[in-house]
Amino acid sequence: METENIHEKFMRQALLEAEKALKNGEVPIGAVIVSNNRIIARGYNQTEQLNDVTAHAEIIAITSATNFLGSKYLKNCSLYVTIEPCVMCAGAIAWAQIPNLIFGAFDSKKGFYLFNKAILNSKVNIINGILKNECSKIIKDFFEKKRKN
Amino acid sequence: METENIHEKFMRQALLEAEKALKNGEVPIGAVIVSNNRIIARGYNQTEQLNDVTAHAEIIAITSATNFLGSKYLKNCSLYVTIEPCVMCAGAIAWAQIPNLIFGAFDSKKGFYLFNKAILNSKVNIINGILKNECSKIIKDFFEKKRKN
Repeated sequence: METENIHEKFMRQALLEAEKALKNGEVPIGAVIVSNNRIIARGYNQTEQLNDVTAHAEIIAITSATNFLGSKYLKNCSLYVTIEPCVMCAGAIAWAQIPNLIFGAFDSKKGFYLFNKAILNSKVNIINGILKNECSKIIKDFFEKKRKN
Repeated sequence: METENIHEKFMRQALLEAEKALKNGEVPIGAVIVSNNRIIARGYNQTEQLNDVTAHAEIIAITSATNFLGSKYLKNCSLYVTIEPCVMCAGAIAWAQIPNLIFGAFDSKKGFYLFNKAILNSKVNIINGILKNECSKIIKDFFEKKRKN
């Protein structure tokens, strides 16, 4: 399978997680963590349900992956997330030493690029734009619907 | 009680949390969250015990405080932490809308000031240096002992 297709395949799984968030009335962001070409952890935004600002898709997926692997470092993993991580999540990605970050759409308001790209060090391989239209549409639709209600 | 003494009083409680971390072989950092002059949440670094890079003192205290208050925003709270928060924790403090951050010693390697002070917006009242010698000594002693072993 071509690299681009592999990324799209896993980003579609992250989008499925985002849809779970959407069904629960949460800002629809989803993530999966992949190791050896296999999904080992999933997460979706649960800040409302858990009443906890730290319950972002990435944080939940990271905690789940560390439980699965029995290691707090995720050195051979790839994190797929539908939207550019915020500063908090980028910090968690750095602490977990995740070497590959793949995200869909940029977050022009809260994305970590706004603050300092060096939150993730230069060794981290970052790819953006995978299924970016789908990843941003699900969020735009959510907020548009919210404004109408 | 004078303001400085109030800050010292709560920072001593954060130091007690740091000592709990120390007893468990963790990097000794502690935090408390105060609302209406009362401690509503406590946390200490548990990254080793929980095998989770996100289990920093501040994150644990924030999650605990939101559980206690039944609100994911901590708008009238003060977070006391022995060491300058990292980027991840500063991001969490921002999401939780905590208006007052009081920390002991700076973290010249991982503190959020290194990346961008604006991770916390300008409305956040930040005080540093409260019991800074005690707050940094407990960490320095920890790492010195670790190097000798």
